[in-house]
Amino acid sequence: MKRHLISAADLTRDDAILILDTAEELAHIAERPIKKLPTLRGRTVVNLFFEDSTRTRISFEAAAKRLSADVINFSAKGSSVSKGESLKDTALTLQAMGADAVVIRHHASGAPHRLAGSGWLRGSVVNAGDGTHEHPTQALLDAFTMRRRLAGGRGDLEGRRITLVGDVLHSRVARSNVLLLATLGAEVTLVAPPTLLPIGVETWPCTVSYDLDAPLPKSDAVMMLRVQRERMNAAFFPTEREYSRRYGLDLRRMAMLPEHAIVMHPGPMNRGMEIAAEVADSTRSTIVEQVTNGVSVRMAVLYLLLGGNEPALSAPSTTGTEEIAK
Amino acid sequence: MKRHLISAADLTRDDAILILDTAEELAHIAERPIKKLPTLRGRTVVNLFFEDSTRTRISFEAAAKRLSADVINFSAKGSSVSKGESLKDTALTLQAMGADAVVIRHHASGAPHRLAGSGWLRGSVVNAGDGTHEHPTQALLDAFTMRRRLAGGRGDLEGRRITLVGDVLHSRVARSNVLLLATLGAEVTLVAPPTLLPIGVETWPCTVSYDLDAPLPKSDAVMMLRVQRERMNAAFFPTEREYSRRYGLDLRRMAMLPEHAIVMHPGPMNRGMEIAAEVADSTRSTIVEQVTNGVSVRMAVLYLLLGGNEPALSAPSTTGTEEIAK
Amino acid sequence: MKRHLISAADLTRDDAILILDTAEELAHIAERPIKKLPTLRGRTVVNLFFEDSTRTRISFEAAAKRLSADVINFSAKGSSVSKGESLKDTALTLQAMGADAVVIRHHASGAPHRLAGSGWLRGSVVNAGDGTHEHPTQALLDAFTMRRRLAGGRGDLEGRRITLVGDVLHSRVARSNVLLLATLGAEVTLVAPPTLLPIGVETWPCTVSYDLDAPLPKSDAVMMLRVQRERMNAAFFPTEREYSRRYGLDLRRMAMLPEHAIVMHPGPMNRGMEIAAEVADSTRSTIVEQVTNGVSVRMAVLYLLLGGNEPALSAPSTTGTEEIAK
Repeated sequence: MKRHLISAADLTRDDAILILDTAEELAHIAERPIKKLPTLRGRTVVNLFFEDSTRTRISFEAAAKRLSADVINFSAKGSSVSKGESLKDTALTLQAMGADAVVIRHHASGAPHRLAGSGWLRGSVVNAGDGTHEHPTQALLDAFTMRRRLAGGRGDLEGRRITLVGDVLHSRVARSNVLLLATLGAEVTLVAPPTLLPIGVETWPCTVSYDLDAPLPKSDAVMMLRVQRERMNAAFFPTEREYSRRYGLDLRRMAMLPEHAIVMHPGPMNRGMEIAAEVADSTRSTIVEQVTNGVSVRMAVLYLLLGGNEPALSAPSTTGTEEIAK
Repeated sequence: MKRHLISAADLTRDDAILILDTAEELAHIAERPIKKLPTLRGRTVVNLFFEDSTRTRISFEAAAKRLSADVINFSAKGSSVSKGESLKDTALTLQAMGADAVVIRHHASGAPHRLAGSGWLRGSVVNAGDGTHEHPTQALLDAFTMRRRLAGGRGDLEGRRITLVGDVLHSRVARSNVLLLATLGAEVTLVAPPTLLPIGVETWPCTVSYDLDAPLPKSDAVMMLRVQRERMNAAFFPTEREYSRRYGLDLRRMAMLPEHAIVMHPGPMNRGMEIAAEVADSTRSTIVEQVTNGVSVRMAVLYLLLGGNEPALSAPSTTGTEEIAK
Repeated sequence: MKRHLISAADLTRDDAILILDTAEELAHIAERPIKKLPTLRGRTVVNLFFEDSTRTRISFEAAAKRLSADVINFSAKGSSVSKGESLKDTALTLQAMGADAVVIRHHASGAPHRLAGSGWLRGSVVNAGDGTHEHPTQALLDAFTMRRRLAGGRGDLEGRRITLVGDVLHSRVARSNVLLLATLGAEVTLVAPPTLLPIGVETWPCTVSYDLDAPLPKSDAVMMLRVQRERMNAAFFPTEREYSRRYGLDLRRMAMLPEHAIVMHPGPMNRGMEIAAEVADSTRSTIVEQVTNGVSVRMAVLYLLLGGNEPALSAPSTTGTEEIAK
């Protein structure tokens, strides 16, 4: 595995499977009375957030703390960064303070890539969402969730049919998912209004459709993307209601799915907009599991990147420990 | 004891005594060279604050860390919560991330009750102040302080006379105190201008008076409530000076108290407004002790709710350990 | 050593050497696989920041965590402090919560001194920058950096020539450096436009010059101060360009330095303003080392003030442990 995790495209199939298998091992920690491993004791993880994102930040924070790392939260708002300090100087500062990993969230696409490629940091960079570009740990937790529900928690997603719906144009989640799912052998269909598809989508390893009803009967999973209401004022759509009618997942549409299919959403949801409340709360919905799985997947990423000296599991484990040792 | 702590009314006399006795044990930790117990290692406490309240937040944070829990601070400002995410989805997220306790502060009365009653969380909910409703750990730390000063640190407050003074209408502290003190057998008198008493106060288990001088000579403790200056612009009072003259505790009034009586304030104080600086700093004042006791009481609450596997005290203790074991 | 660290002037030569030697020991921790000592386990360090300063805050936070202390961050913005609570009541609150050290950053010169001198706190106060007054740990990390680069990491700086350049008037860094460097025997020259020198500078233990080119050929170190652009609108200078031409360190000026001389900056830099980018990134620049050294120096200060019960180094150390034991 590479030293950084910037894009889902960086991951080979073997890398991705290693992360998912490691996360599977680490998921069991959450069920222990003491939900903590000593693996990363004495390591420092910095959450460098240029955008507010409480959910993602606390997911990484919980993951790092569960591995006994020290966590330092660095909100770039109000810091010298916002006073015009360059990303370079921020990076050199974090390096100098001994950051072993920098988890970065940035409004500009490409910022994590610059940070990782610069040589400014000896530690690892993990992209926690950059502009409209990528959010690779989200894609990993989504794949982890699909594996558990659709493939018994092992192997890849070969031949699984996944439908992603909504504002693909602004969605780093969509891009990372398409790339990772293709690597894992899944067949992805994007459904979106033409105005919410990015230029160049025809080169992505997926199919595009404008009609949500068509792919549903053959989907193993359907993932609804968050509508960013502030962008809905534009000329894209007459109304929220119209969006909901054409691209929202309601009970009628959910009934079109095969019996085993799951409904996903990266959160936070707009209930009643891209997803009906009854759908969000149905037993097909994996939305809450996705959050839980996010902690396990981020534990696995931090563990593998920071290369703990000890095996991931301190207690003798039943299976899979050999794979975990790097 | 119940799984959550939402209202002082939830506590039976036995519950309250158990918390106070446990806090008494845990208070000794603060005097050790290493002020830390391993009791809640591997547990996660989330401080979910929809309102700024640095004092309460750091009191819970210190309490949780002294028990070796991991603490995650979640300020709802700027988070997806403020972008319209429902309390339900926030709760499901925290549950999914493995929160063992959620300490919630909310501007809306009843929010902690909704959170606890919903089934969204498997962990415990602790109300750290909701609107004008309740603040039960404040009442517990006040009772703890009274017990120590008036009753030798044991038993209840049977027959003790407590006077609460000021803006009862907006005070969650007053409401929780009245309920808890009644449970513990104390006789409570509220003193406030009629315009600052809530509708229905006649059903509270206490006496109401408009004249501060009357109850003072028989009070074992007098608790001054914070005046929220921003509300003083209303037609309630001509001036701050007038408020201070009629409802403020100055040296003259303090001299009316029995010799053993104590002066309390939940903080932050408006020195010179509801309380004179000389009174706040006098030896009768327990204001600083209340803050110290707040950490002990919150340790006890977290310990009892999260049901540590180990006894509260790791070292063999002199007395009371049997009571602590749940 | 005194119980607090408020001003560089508080430090005797022996105190300063003790801190620098201790920091030298502790610096090695950063190279271990587990960058952590148990020395301050169970102690609580509060970062009380009335001004945003992410760099300084995370440096203290990293230092405290590396010594296993619990860290509580208290940003005074939005807290009851900003609602008019007095510094006294904030201090009493922190004391009551069991703070062993309060690291304070305040916009008002003298606030840390008031906090330390008041008797409100039993713990230690560390000044992390107050108004235009002092920033003693910055001066210590600068001295540490000079010792390492110029004096083999031991002893004092007797006879070393240090040039400080720029906005001395508003710089707490300059004041603390002048005081500490004089204590350590260095010869300091300040270079600044007359309008950016404080009244009374003639009583400081240093020389003043208006011409940057003059002292450079004899300087062992030159320290560039941050220009605070917001103050440059004043009548001090016609333009930023003019400032840069007269007081900026560019490649031409750097070439005037002796071969062994180093270039320092407390950060964050305005590249192209007080320092050219090529100078900042040159091998003479110690800017990044200064940040690293900041963590070591703050570890030493916290260790010495909080008087750990154990020696600073848990493992048997090669040299210098005797000096560290207080």
